Amino acid sequence: MSSRHLLLDPHAQDLLFRKARTAHAFTGEPVDDELLAAVHELVKWAPTSFNQQPLRIVLVRSDEARRRLVPLMWDCNQAKTATAPLVAVLGADLGFHEYLPEQFPAFPQAKDVFFSNDDVRCESAVLNASIQIGYFILGVRAAGLAVGPMTGFQADKVSAEFFPDGRHRALAVINMGRPSTGAWFDRLPRLPYDRVFTSC
Amino acid sequence: MSSRHLLLDPHAQDLLFRKARTAHAFTGEPVDDELLAAVHELVKWAPTSFNQQPLRIVLVRSDEARRRLVPLMWDCNQAKTATAPLVAVLGADLGFHEYLPEQFPAFPQAKDVFFSNDDVRCESAVLNASIQIGYFILGVRAAGLAVGPMTGFQADKVSAEFFPDGRHRALAVINMGRPSTGAWFDRLPRLPYDRVFTSC
Repeated sequence: MSSRHLLLDPHAQDLLFRKARTAHAFTGEPVDDELLAAVHELVKWAPTSFNQQPLRIVLVRSDEARRRLVPLMWDCNQAKTATAPLVAVLGADLGFHEYLPEQFPAFPQAKDVFFSNDDVRCESAVLNASIQIGYFILGVRAAGLAVGPMTGFQADKVSAEFFPDGRHRALAVINMGRPSTGAWFDRLPRLPYDRVFTSC
Repeated sequence: MSSRHLLLDPHAQDLLFRKARTAHAFTGEPVDDELLAAVHELVKWAPTSFNQQPLRIVLVRSDEARRRLVPLMWDCNQAKTATAPLVAVLGADLGFHEYLPEQFPAFPQAKDVFFSNDDVRCESAVLNASIQIGYFILGVRAAGLAVGPMTGFQADKVSAEFFPDGRHRALAVINMGRPSTGAWFDRLPRLPYDRVFTSC
């Protein structure tokens, strides 16, 4: 059975997965907030533990903010981060539990029963925000844009610069826009099924 | 602009996000390996850092394995994990860097330059495997199945039981199948755009 047998139609498979590629160069066409709001209206429905939704996204819109971000990226990521139409810093809200009584009203005590321990709470925030980064990457592709997700940056400094309240952890920086000439590198090999899945 | 304006067609939006729901009860219809292989052939193309692909998935197929897993789930997750047609344990391969020269041939030194430090490597494995869990959840939905993802289990014990080599960390357990009567709870509130996104 191949992915042709999935319920999702082949055009959508191509758009989200098979023909979508990580972009390393973009045209100048801007990405407006309205498109991101449409992405959010879609991906917000995907699940998180206790509906905690810890992902927070900072859109780096001003030249001043971009100038603060670029030197904190690894060298190999600086040029594309300097020139992408839109750059976003994605992080986990380590204090997400404050909102749990609102987000998970069936068991408002979850805030204290499960998440009063700092290590447990941070681990859950990072896990769930990362899962949401997966949803977000596919959501931006659903909007017809290309993404260039990066984890190569000085994470502590990016956290401090872009989440100055000290309760967030930066996890990824994502360039977004329409791909230009030279956007693509060669496609890299993927692990086959039998190296990812086992049965017991 | 609403999600009607996205390039992804509305039926696909419904299938993956808007009408898809976390299922808490399933019919007895089995989920075969061929369908999961088709899911893998699709979601394997989504991006990870250095193409590291650290997600590993153990399909709990035997009654014996199911009996080992169920008592390690939190009480609220035991009954549905005992009865779902298929249960999978998803974890991160903390030794993914061994394969990097094959997965990222453009810079085979990445294995040692970036990932010789245990903490850095584990953090990257967990981050990327979690992002891949997001892809996988949507991929299973693309196959027309419902998922019941859970993080409520004794993670250290599940890691030890289902990844006995000691180099993997269990991150999620996911029930899969066709939803039955009583599969759904009420839909929970989602954070609005302006509580997730900020600009600077």
